Amino acid sequence: MRARVYVTLKPGVHDPAGTAVQGGLVSMGYEEVRSVRIGKFFEVEVDDDLSAQHAGGPRARLEEMCRKLLANTVIESFRVELL
Amino acid sequence: MRARVYVTLKPGVHDPAGTAVQGGLVSMGYEEVRSVRIGKFFEVEVDDDLSAQHAGGPRARLEEMCRKLLANTVIESFRVELL
Repeated sequence: MRARVYVTLKPGVHDPAGTAVQGGLVSMGYEEVRSVRIGKFFEVEVDDDLSAQHAGGPRARLEEMCRKLLANTVIESFRVELL
Repeated sequence: MRARVYVTLKPGVHDPAGTAVQGGLVSMGYEEVRSVRIGKFFEVEVDDDLSAQHAGGPRARLEEMCRKLLANTVIESFRVELL
């Protein structure tokens, strides 16, 4: 099965890259762009048989992966979407 | 209004960072993870009044921004979602 994991900066955390993109767009003539925040996402392909050997199901496993590796939970939040 | 823009590597384009994350997850015990591909997304806040001054609507403008700045269309594809 496939899943998508979205990792976003928490509200209030400064995003200098997003601010740079916003400034770039405005200077290119897209003056309607008020703010940009940049996040990342992971498209994960999970083996169903191996996944079934773990209690809690794939969502619980993916959330664990987020907390341990994919997201920095001090400054980032995450969302898991099973496809 | 708000929009999200998702930028993904096109199929067939090598993703060394994704491969590294996949290897990391497997070595941490998540052996069910077959592949990982990394994309980015942009949360864009658009001023409605300024946006209305342009023909084609916000989606056409955002797609133009993707082609010109947010995505490298040689190796990346993009998707615009209006919220």
